[in-house]
Order: sequence, then structure tokens, then C-alpha cells
Amino acid sequence: MKQSQLFTHTLKESPRDEVSLNAQLLIKAGYIYKEMAGVYSFLPLGLKVLNKIEKIIREEMDDIGGIEMRTSVFQNQEVWQKSNRWDDSVVDNWFKTKLKNGTEVGLSFTNEEAYANILKQYINSYKDLPAYPYDFKTIFRNEARSKSGIFRGREFYWKALYSFSKDEEEHYEFYDKAKEAYRKIFQRVGVGDLTYLTFASGGSFSKFSHEFQTLTKAGEDTIYIDEKKGIAVNKEVYTDEVLKSLKLDKNNLVERKAVEVGNIFSLGTKFSAPFNLKYVKPDGKEDLVVMGSYGIGLGRLMGTIVEVLADDQGIIWPKSVAPFQVHLIDLRTKRDDKIYQILQKQGFEVLYDDRKISAGIKLKDADLMGMPYRLVQSDKLGDKLELKRRGSKEINLYSEKEIIKVLQE
Amino acid sequence: MKQSQLFTHTLKESPRDEVSLNAQLLIKAGYIYKEMAGVYSFLPLGLKVLNKIEKIIREEMDDIGGIEMRTSVFQNQEVWQKSNRWDDSVVDNWFKTKLKNGTEVGLSFTNEEAYANILKQYINSYKDLPAYPYDFKTIFRNEARSKSGIFRGREFYWKALYSFSKDEEEHYEFYDKAKEAYRKIFQRVGVGDLTYLTFASGGSFSKFSHEFQTLTKAGEDTIYIDEKKGIAVNKEVYTDEVLKSLKLDKNNLVERKAVEVGNIFSLGTKFSAPFNLKYVKPDGKEDLVVMGSYGIGLGRLMGTIVEVLADDQGIIWPKSVAPFQVHLIDLRTKRDDKIYQILQKQGFEVLYDDRKISAGIKLKDADLMGMPYRLVQSDKLGDKLELKRRGSKEINLYSEKEIIKVLQE
Repeated sequence: MKQSQLFTHTLKESPRDEVSLNAQLLIKAGYIYKEMAGVYSFLPLGLKVLNKIEKIIREEMDDIGGIEMRTSVFQNQEVWQKSNRWDDSVVDNWFKTKLKNGTEVGLSFTNEEAYANILKQYINSYKDLPAYPYDFKTIFRNEARSKSGIFRGREFYWKALYSFSKDEEEHYEFYDKAKEAYRKIFQRVGVGDLTYLTFASGGSFSKFSHEFQTLTKAGEDTIYIDEKKGIAVNKEVYTDEVLKSLKLDKNNLVERKAVEVGNIFSLGTKFSAPFNLKYVKPDGKEDLVVMGSYGIGLGRLMGTIVEVLADDQGIIWPKSVAPFQVHLIDLRTKRDDKIYQILQKQGFEVLYDDRKISAGIKLKDADLMGMPYRLVQSDKLGDKLELKRRGSKEINLYSEKEIIKVLQE
Repeated sequence: MKQSQLFTHTLKESPRDEVSLNAQLLIKAGYIYKEMAGVYSFLPLGLKVLNKIEKIIREEMDDIGGIEMRTSVFQNQEVWQKSNRWDDSVVDNWFKTKLKNGTEVGLSFTNEEAYANILKQYINSYKDLPAYPYDFKTIFRNEARSKSGIFRGREFYWKALYSFSKDEEEHYEFYDKAKEAYRKIFQRVGVGDLTYLTFASGGSFSKFSHEFQTLTKAGEDTIYIDEKKGIAVNKEVYTDEVLKSLKLDKNNLVERKAVEVGNIFSLGTKFSAPFNLKYVKPDGKEDLVVMGSYGIGLGRLMGTIVEVLADDQGIIWPKSVAPFQVHLIDLRTKRDDKIYQILQKQGFEVLYDDRKISAGIKLKDADLMGMPYRLVQSDKLGDKLELKRRGSKEINLYSEKEIIKVLQE
């Protein structure tokens, strides 16, 4: 894409009330627009990143048998009354609104009920199980405070998968697969090495849930990490008893702040029971379906990538989620788009800065915007191209022929 | 996909309160789930269709210079007060909700204000124009009645593009391109021959807007068509004066019911003025940006395809939007997925009915679900495969080798 055709540009300042680093950088670099606290629009560059994260998650969910669908935002109160989660005294972060006839409807804050209710219509026999439907969808939560940028939105975009299994055994078989899929996702988007599988509070049906926590000072959670074992414990379950059951030694644990980028949860029959979601077994008897939930907030993950990888100059995108792989900066007095066209033809995603502004602004913009490779064309360099990996200080010169090979590595 | 792995199945009945043909068929065939009047969830098959429609629209929008982004659902009242469209006495189909601190926020019912407000931050000079940002997004409208299935939802998924141009000339140049892009879209999704460019009421800044109306008895609009000229006039502007200005002869017009599947609208400075959305011209003077809007409801378009193409047996999908091209029905006593695998490898999208149920149900399901090609394997046929185009009565037998060529045509 030619940068002159992109209507967004970098800003000197982010809004005064924006205190989080992730949103400050994303706003200044032209990725998101702040509509109000906890509500952001995704500008073209931001949507590109979001779409890349979505694609990676989709591939991993499909790979473990997930089937994508899309549940509605508006939620029927009758459905939520079944599980006793309609009332504001039970769930205090609902957003609700009213139809013309006065009927109250809720805005999705999670999906357990919607899925249990829909699957009730389709699950009858053991032959219909297991089922692993999932959703990418905008979710709404009425947070009292919303100061963490896209870490904790009032409106946010997430993926939620629900597993419907015949029994605990089948459930945990999938649960473990999901755990691995999540590891792959965080690895692929570039925060794997900073992300720990973390034991957190369970619920009526399991001792623990599992969170994926990425280390960052901006995180709202406190976790205790065993670096050798590569696992962690959330402060909320950090007791001697728990440590003992997990065979962890207090002396080997370090306390760190982290942000929860994903969680997986065994729900047992908590939701299948109120919806009477049963199936007929081969022997003709009935049993309740065993459920699990598997969530990732895509905006939060995008914010986390920014927060943990950025430097003083701006954003540093991993190749896998960068809106463009190459930022081609043309500083020549006489310009042509020859190299841009060649790279495009070779299949590279290129943002071509063809704007008629100063070299200083262009180079500063490139650092702020964070594409993995900065490629400079200038009169001083002649036919050579200057390549710099974002985040590295090393600068190398290559010929037109060489550059393609180097970028393909 | 193996049908045994799809948790949805066909239903004998749709909900009693569902009176529209499009939703009745889509519910019975397992494409959508009715959450409440005017609110539907998209099941896996339904989402596949929606995604294919989305891809076609995206390609055509990108082709005329569109740049995709994603505005938030939650809308800030301060923004809408600028154009005087916040108050319920002005716009009577807002859904609104409240933040914890009591602040009212609106749920997007359209996007003019959100875009004008965002672009205000980025448009300064004539060099920044034109700009053609667009959105795929869930939109909410508080309809008093909602009985038309996915024709008129309280919650629906749409595409909206807004054009920002320097002057009327640049505006109409794009407007005409958009018209052609819309024609292509309706042609590609299979309803082009039934869809008429229709003159409808304009506004303060243009005599007419243009609607794309698809003929169907289920439509809520009445239009008058000149079949030779291939254009129509909406009843709302059907006056002698208008006919004269369009050089149409009343005697050549036929009255028909139709559904509006798309509309394009010249907005002039209606929204740029209240947002003071100006740009500096080459001569240093300032001028207001000229806007246009270009909308398509994807759910409505999906419903229209169902409504106008279906027969007594069920849905008939055009190849371009069908969730699968081929419905492979295995009626053999001894089954293997050899043909399924071969077709998949050849790149065909195949739904393989491997379920152990009666032949009658399978064939009836295939008709209801509406994939373009039904391919039957049965013991009677030996090595031959029986091919039937959905909607045609013709049945032909082919060998394994022949079938790939036939399907590729």
C-alpha cells in the first residue's frame, strides 16, 4: 500500500486521558481511535493487525476440531434466567437496553448461556458429541474503571470456544489439546516466551482453571512463576496447600505482574444442568453434557504485544501480526515505485512511504509504526537499499537482487 | 466437511412466530438460530454463506479504492449531538444503554457521524483526499415490528462505505464507480438479473438517492420498473414530474414489490458541516469535504438470495455463496471417504453426508440445504456417481474421472 493513500497518519499526542502505554502508542501510530474510555475504533492499520491475530487463532481452533459460528450480541433474558445470571445483583457488568415494547435485552458479556441454549436444540445422542463451536464477536462489559487502553475494554473483540463432551475423560482430552493450541497461538503472535500457563481459581467443577499470563508491568494480575518448570500460580490461589498440590516450592517462585491473555475453564455441568442439556448414551440412558470454555481477547492480545515488545521509539510488531512486513521509505528526489512493485510481486506486504515530507519525519514514523523491516531508498545510496530490522541497530546495504533473498529468510 | 461432525441438523419446523420464508428456510436447514424477533445467531453453515458474501463485497470495495477499518458499536453522545441526531425525538430507532457512571451511550445504527468525527482528525489538506473508508460491522436498530426474518433485523451485519471527496465532481466520479461495483456484487451473489437500480428520495443535497431493489413478493417496497431501460423508480418519488425528469413513460412501467438490498447516497456537506470537516485547497483557501454513503446489509442480502431463488423443496444457493459446492451423499452399505478425499484435494468444497440414516432423509436434507451440486454414491450405481444440479430435474451418471471435469465447468 502506498502511504499517501492511507488517510491516517501519526499523531504527536494521544488524548490526555489516555494513560496506558498500549493505547498511547497505538493511537499515536494511527492504529486505533479512542471513542471513549474503554471503547476504541480500529483504523485500517489496526484492523490489519487484528485480522492477522484472528487468522492465527482461527487456524489453531480449526486444527483441534473447532467449528466457527457467530452468536448474536443481543441476549434474551429468558435464556439467562435459566442459569440465574440475568439479574444485575448476580452479574454486575451487564449492559442492557430496551426494545420498543419495553422488553429488556442484554448485550453479550460472555457466551456460555447462548451456546448451551443453541446446542440444546441440536444435541440429542452420543453421536452428536463432542462439539466444539466457537465465535469471534464483539463483547460488552460494563467496567467501572477503564484505564488500561485495549487491555480492558467496555467493548472488545474476542474469541470464545465452548466444548461439549460426553464425560470428564473426553472433556480433559480436549482441554489438554486446547492448552497446546493456546501455547501455539501465543508463540505465533510473538509473546510465547513471556507467557506462562498459570493455575488460577477453578469453580464448583474443577480445582483450577488455567490462564495464560504474559509478563508486563502494566498487567493487573500478580503471578508466582517457577521459571524452570515454566508454570505459574495466580495470586488468587497462592496458598501453601495449592503449592503443595502442584509440587511447587515457594523458594523457587518469583512474583511478577502479568496480563491474562487467555483462559481455559472446566465448566462441568454448571450450564448444561440449567438448560437440561442431556444426551442419550449407547445404553439408552441419559446424561448431562460436560462443558468447557476457552477465551482469548483479541484487542487485549494486540495491546499486550505492543506493551511488551515496544521500545522508546515506538511499536515493534512481530512479523506474524505486522500490518506490513516491509516499510519502504523513499527519500530520493526523483521517485519511482519500481522496488515497491517488485516486492509486491514477490508476495511481500509493503507499506511504501511515497509522501513528500522530510526524511526525519519518515524515519521517525517508521519507528513509531513498527513494521519489522525498514528499507530505505535514497540518493546517497545509489542503487543500494538500506535494510534495518526494527528493534535492531544493525544496518546493511543490499542490491535489488540480494534484498529479496534477505527478506525471504 | 463430514456432516457427522457438524453439530447442527435440519429441523422439521421453524419457530411458530417465524412468518418470513427466508428465516423459516434458513432455520429449518440449520443456517441460523432465532434468538428473538429480529435477532438471529449464525450457525456454522450460515456463517459460511455470510463470509462468502462478505468476501465478494470486500473485493469490490477494495477494487474501487475502499480501505477497510472497524468503528466501535458504542457511540459517544457528544459526537451525535453535533449533527443533532442523538435525541430520540429526532432518531426514533436508537438503542441506548448506560455506563456505570450514568453516561448514556448509543449502539451504532449508522456510521456517518462516527466516520466524519474520525476523519476530522486526519483530513487537513487536499492531499489527504479523496478517502474511501469502510466497515463490516454489527448494527442495531430499534424496529417497532420485526417480522421479515433476516430482511429487517434489530441486530444485523452490514457493510458501509463513506466517501470523502474534495468537490461534487470528484464525488460523482466515485459515486458512479460505486454504482458499478454494486451491480457487480449483486450479479456475483446471484440476484443481479432480479435487481434494479432504483431512483429514490434524495435529501437536501441531491434530488435522488439510488437503491438496488431485488424483486420479491416479500419485499416491503413498491417500485415501478422500465424493463427495457433496466431502471426503476421507488413509489416514494413516483410523480409525473420525476418521471418526466428521468424521461420515463408511465405506460412502460410495471409495479412490483421489491426489497432494498443496497443504497448509495450523496450526502453533500450535511455531515462535514457540523463536524467542520474542512480541507485546505492548493490555493490556501478552505472548503468543506463532500460526503457520500454506500450501504449493504449482508443478512438482508443473504435472506434475499434465499427468498428469490428457493423452490418448494428448500434453498437453492448460487455457487458463489454456497457454504459447500458439492453435497456428497453416501448411500452405500459399505462406506469409505475416497471420493470425498479426491474432491477435497481437487479444491472443491464438499459436505460429505456420511451419516447412518435413511436415504430418504439424506436426499430431502440435501434439497432443503441447497448446495449447488448433489452427488450420490450408492450400491445400485456401482462405480458411477449420480450428479444433480440443485433446482434442475436432470440427473446424470459419471465415472470418478469424469466427475471432476464436470464439476470444474
